[in-house]
Amino acid sequence: MTERLGRRVPEPSIVRLPVYQRVLQELARKSVATVSSAELADACGVNAAKVRKDLSHFGTYGTRGTGYDVDYLLCQIQRELGLDQERAVVMAGMGHLGHALARSAGFVASGFRIAGLFDVETSTIGEVVSGVRVSHVSELDSVCREQAVSIGVITTPAVVAQDVCDRMAGAGVGAILNFAPTVLTVPPTVHVRHVDFSAELQVLAFYQAHPEAVVGRLEAVARLGS
Amino acid sequence: MTERLGRRVPEPSIVRLPVYQRVLQELARKSVATVSSAELADACGVNAAKVRKDLSHFGTYGTRGTGYDVDYLLCQIQRELGLDQERAVVMAGMGHLGHALARSAGFVASGFRIAGLFDVETSTIGEVVSGVRVSHVSELDSVCREQAVSIGVITTPAVVAQDVCDRMAGAGVGAILNFAPTVLTVPPTVHVRHVDFSAELQVLAFYQAHPEAVVGRLEAVARLGS
Repeated sequence: MTERLGRRVPEPSIVRLPVYQRVLQELARKSVATVSSAELADACGVNAAKVRKDLSHFGTYGTRGTGYDVDYLLCQIQRELGLDQERAVVMAGMGHLGHALARSAGFVASGFRIAGLFDVETSTIGEVVSGVRVSHVSELDSVCREQAVSIGVITTPAVVAQDVCDRMAGAGVGAILNFAPTVLTVPPTVHVRHVDFSAELQVLAFYQAHPEAVVGRLEAVARLGS
Repeated sequence: MTERLGRRVPEPSIVRLPVYQRVLQELARKSVATVSSAELADACGVNAAKVRKDLSHFGTYGTRGTGYDVDYLLCQIQRELGLDQERAVVMAGMGHLGHALARSAGFVASGFRIAGLFDVETSTIGEVVSGVRVSHVSELDSVCREQAVSIGVITTPAVVAQDVCDRMAGAGVGAILNFAPTVLTVPPTVHVRHVDFSAELQVLAFYQAHPEAVVGRLEAVARLGS
């Protein structure tokens, strides 16, 4: 599977996989057996041709007139997403945002296990969030190494984000989700995704200022979930 | 400006504007007068050719050997982003995530004004966050209409997100930033951006499961800030 995937799957297709997964989970819960590309597209806010193209990257083709087998497609997407094995995640920065994310349903439901929560505030250290005790950030390194943590989430203030990022990268964390409003510098082996609230607002402001930018808008809908 | 922009600016270029803006603000603060496309690219985590292409969409070209005038470029990007006018924003769902976002520096610093914060919990209603009193969601409609609110942020649980979205769209809100883990249905005139924590984790898990997906990775770096 890894072999076949190779280098040709475009990022937007990968970014849509979690959206497909969510919709398929919903269908499976309702005991729906098959779904057409048009129905799947509709539920995901993309067009049917894009759904077929995306899924073909993973060697999956629906049956004409019947569509896709919901359980099989769900299982396949979860395997592609690497969710057939549990992944250990650490999070640094246990303010409101850290609390919100650590408690979010998406965490555990999606096959992620919180291996550690970290902060520097003595008032926060020792607090138990989602069943995990908040530790001092100085313990981040040992927790990451002992539990083979692969994903780190940064919810600290911007000024300390690079330091936390360096600690994570130094402890072998290969993927970082950054919520701090700053650009992080990482070794080429580390993958960073950046979620920036004010940037999201600014992109919306752009479309408000330029309501004629229709093509971009449709593209944005297609990138839903990114 | 609006005229010239037309329909041809691709979404990824728009998504990078806030990143350029943040780096330029930092340079302006340090009294740096000019910046080359290579320096700007480096600070933003994209390549120099992409920076030049992005900025050329907005009719901006650097001077060979000198680069871009920092203040002028910053001012131009802010105008493109529609940040030369204050925008009124409402937020529904004042749990941890709502609190974190309402208090985030990016909100006010970026020219956004909180016109209203909403919830349904009696324990939350009346609380003052970032100088704004939390109101019952039944008041959302009148606040949006009276204050010409253009952007709505949804930080509610998934089960009520569509209802809140309908209220916002019905009250004339043209752009919605959705943090609830659900796909929203909106009229074609309303622009939705979706920030999904578990989907972000899943995309990182994909890259951990497929470390050979290098092309996708570089693309992801280029989309930094999206």
